[in-house]
Amino acid sequence: MPSSIYHATAQIHPYADTIAMWIDGQLIDGQFAPQALNGMATLSEAQANEISFMADPKLIGEAEASKAGLIITPVGCELSGKARVEVEHVWGAVEVILRRLYPPELSNPGIHSTAIVGEGVKLGEGVTVGPYCVIGDRCELADGATLGPHCILDKDCQVGSGSRLLARVTLSGPVTLGQRVLIHPGAVLGADGFKFEPSEGRPLKIPQVGRVLVEDDVEIGANTTIDRAFLHETRIGHDTKIDNQVQIAHNVEIGPGCLLAAQVGIAGSTRLGKGCMLGGRACLRDNLTIGDGVMIGGAAGVHTDWPEGSTIMGTPAMEMKAFWRVAAAEKKLPEYVKRLRAAERKLEQRQP
Amino acid sequence: MPSSIYHATAQIHPYADTIAMWIDGQLIDGQFAPQALNGMATLSEAQANEISFMADPKLIGEAEASKAGLIITPVGCELSGKARVEVEHVWGAVEVILRRLYPPELSNPGIHSTAIVGEGVKLGEGVTVGPYCVIGDRCELADGATLGPHCILDKDCQVGSGSRLLARVTLSGPVTLGQRVLIHPGAVLGADGFKFEPSEGRPLKIPQVGRVLVEDDVEIGANTTIDRAFLHETRIGHDTKIDNQVQIAHNVEIGPGCLLAAQVGIAGSTRLGKGCMLGGRACLRDNLTIGDGVMIGGAAGVHTDWPEGSTIMGTPAMEMKAFWRVAAAEKKLPEYVKRLRAAERKLEQRQP
Amino acid sequence: MPSSIYHATAQIHPYADTIAMWIDGQLIDGQFAPQALNGMATLSEAQANEISFMADPKLIGEAEASKAGLIITPVGCELSGKARVEVEHVWGAVEVILRRLYPPELSNPGIHSTAIVGEGVKLGEGVTVGPYCVIGDRCELADGATLGPHCILDKDCQVGSGSRLLARVTLSGPVTLGQRVLIHPGAVLGADGFKFEPSEGRPLKIPQVGRVLVEDDVEIGANTTIDRAFLHETRIGHDTKIDNQVQIAHNVEIGPGCLLAAQVGIAGSTRLGKGCMLGGRACLRDNLTIGDGVMIGGAAGVHTDWPEGSTIMGTPAMEMKAFWRVAAAEKKLPEYVKRLRAAERKLEQRQP
Repeated sequence: MPSSIYHATAQIHPYADTIAMWIDGQLIDGQFAPQALNGMATLSEAQANEISFMADPKLIGEAEASKAGLIITPVGCELSGKARVEVEHVWGAVEVILRRLYPPELSNPGIHSTAIVGEGVKLGEGVTVGPYCVIGDRCELADGATLGPHCILDKDCQVGSGSRLLARVTLSGPVTLGQRVLIHPGAVLGADGFKFEPSEGRPLKIPQVGRVLVEDDVEIGANTTIDRAFLHETRIGHDTKIDNQVQIAHNVEIGPGCLLAAQVGIAGSTRLGKGCMLGGRACLRDNLTIGDGVMIGGAAGVHTDWPEGSTIMGTPAMEMKAFWRVAAAEKKLPEYVKRLRAAERKLEQRQP
Repeated sequence: MPSSIYHATAQIHPYADTIAMWIDGQLIDGQFAPQALNGMATLSEAQANEISFMADPKLIGEAEASKAGLIITPVGCELSGKARVEVEHVWGAVEVILRRLYPPELSNPGIHSTAIVGEGVKLGEGVTVGPYCVIGDRCELADGATLGPHCILDKDCQVGSGSRLLARVTLSGPVTLGQRVLIHPGAVLGADGFKFEPSEGRPLKIPQVGRVLVEDDVEIGANTTIDRAFLHETRIGHDTKIDNQVQIAHNVEIGPGCLLAAQVGIAGSTRLGKGCMLGGRACLRDNLTIGDGVMIGGAAGVHTDWPEGSTIMGTPAMEMKAFWRVAAAEKKLPEYVKRLRAAERKLEQRQP
Repeated sequence: MPSSIYHATAQIHPYADTIAMWIDGQLIDGQFAPQALNGMATLSEAQANEISFMADPKLIGEAEASKAGLIITPVGCELSGKARVEVEHVWGAVEVILRRLYPPELSNPGIHSTAIVGEGVKLGEGVTVGPYCVIGDRCELADGATLGPHCILDKDCQVGSGSRLLARVTLSGPVTLGQRVLIHPGAVLGADGFKFEPSEGRPLKIPQVGRVLVEDDVEIGANTTIDRAFLHETRIGHDTKIDNQVQIAHNVEIGPGCLLAAQVGIAGSTRLGKGCMLGGRACLRDNLTIGDGVMIGGAAGVHTDWPEGSTIMGTPAMEMKAFWRVAAAEKKLPEYVKRLRAAERKLEQRQP
């Protein structure tokens, strides 16, 4: 096994002043920078020919100890004796540098000879369809849409321009994807919602005939599942980002700009406002209404509606401050029980 | 992005009296119905040429405000001035109408030219095997069995008549499926159970040589996993319905007619009786015995056996009524602690 | 549906003394053994021509009642009147017997004609690549590596010697697998970590350019996801075994010899020591440090660091003994509240 820590090799090797230009920052003590920079690394792992960054001023000690050849810092950083670039937004700068150093390898547009394309399929300009894809009748792929290997599209799906299904993505019912949607391997969109009614002692399946609608700039993680609606649509708002192994049931509506961490589960017809953040493993009951900007802690279990701006945690979920007070008290519960008994004994002893 | 809500277009466009006949109901005020009906929609979304339904009498206000051209209602509904069909069981009627309006598009039976079929495979009449399927040696597909694209069957699997593996389903060990089983994309049946024994400081894998047995009329959701048994079999009873991302470990036995919502997890050798209902995200320890008709609330964590007819919730699970009492008390725990302190102070002050 | 319980048929049918030799045990009362043994079964299911085993001395009653033709027992077992083999480690013996009776069917080495192999790919001796695999540019498969059907390897992946990707495994970014790694169907390694920063009201995706490193002798369950690092690597230590539907986020480091049961979730950059055991559905926050040998109970939610040797449970997690005391007290909380009220009333009555 390799014992050395992995450092990704950049596609290009820029000078420090080029990097400052990319990120609209000020190069300071540039004389300490190496001739060319080979990639990005953390403060502790970076070598003399690598770039690093200090997003949090608390890391000044680590920055001083770092071997990095160039460090991206916030404006006014007290670091000295090192080549650095000061910027307003460190993470924004990191994003730009990474995108330039490690551009995604472009696939050659075209339909792979092994792809199976149904009848009446419409393909835009510069579409890529990878090996062993199966595209159902009447699907539409807009300009620049990319299907990696082994993607399966049921009939009547639409993929917006610039959207990328990386590999082995399945659109199982009618699914409409907006522009620049990114879907990781193993995701399944459009499977039947889970709707059964009792009927003579056996569950009766209610047919699911709605669709999934994913708006622009959404990202969907590996092995995530988003069910088609019973009627009408399950909707994921634009700019919403969904991690791995998330389950979104039929007729759920998620507002724009939400972040759903891994293993979240949302039951049928629940609605989230815009800009909500759900920690890993949070789960929500069916038919809830969650307001804009609600923050839900990891592993929370939500049974009721919550208004705009709430920050909640626990199962059943409560406001975060209340949750931590309750959790602290719970931990001492056996002690409180002893004290209750002691109080009871004292009262008993003084009975007249 | 499309801003309009999706309405699925029906394959046929029946008159109101035809619909009444389908569902054995009574057409009332049929003169208000349009000439033909184009599909089904919710009360609030339905247009004048669409059917809707009122499953719950509380929705009478929404029904009165609905533009639907025809509404399915319970017998004796007080709705007036609208074309409607009264039936005993609204959901049963909805199921019939949806099945007729939106019949699943039939695949053409036959073995796709790209399917790879092993030695000694037996194929019944009218079997469909989709593109890029890989079928291992000695598998058997009974009459009318359908494999969608990209299904993989390990050697020695059986698929009962009329069963449908929609797409990208993997049977990894020996798996036996009954009749009319429906499996959604990404499900994996028959992977090894998780059984390791400590051995000289390293986990020793115990080989898993049992199978998975899925009885008739079972439905299995997207990306669900059901492991093969260590010895003998993991068994899913007939008419049991399993949602997405459920994990069922080796040697679990699930009785008939159970409903398992999304992200449920059941550990090794646990047995469920018939007609149990598990809410989303419920999880059960290994080696439990859960009686018939037990209802387990969403996100519950079950550590002990429960007898027939129990309704339980929470982690560790308790009876539902007790759970809500405990949850209400927990929420006020910081207040009770203050009151305990106040009582202690009063007792202290009166010490002789 | 078949009503009989499944018994796997062994590939060979050894005599009792052969079995004793395999497992280095002592055959006792061998005269009661049948001529040849057909397979292994549990004590209750075993037939006269099958082997069974008694791992726990408490099962002596079941062993006496068993029809098994040969029983593996601990040394000094009081069983009598039955052919048996006494060994030091029953589970170790069971492992040996199962491996010999039910050897995995070997695939024929070679590259299937439908596999698509990129440029610059290096293939060792005796490599197997199954149907419809897609192998990206510059991948390396060492001697004896096996890819089952439908595996997808992104460019620049390495698969160590003797490693087996059973079917439909996707390596999505750069992934390095050690030797004898076993991966079950549907697993996705190397998808992007979930890292977004707020930027003008929209989440900004931070490119993920690290890799996944899986050391020797690791097993990874069905539909499990392990994300590539943001920078550097996500690392799974040697001999660690991971069950189905586990989610491991970017930059997590897991020590050697850990066991992670199904549906576990570990958030970004958290580190586990060696020999940790995580029960099903346990979840860990990001950026934690968990010491060697920590045992985490099923469904626990871990928010803080824990030192070597801790045994913890609950959400938020606490030491196991404390957890059960707290859980017992919680269950009686409504009763304690009543008693608190009674004490308050008594105090009130005696106010001067």
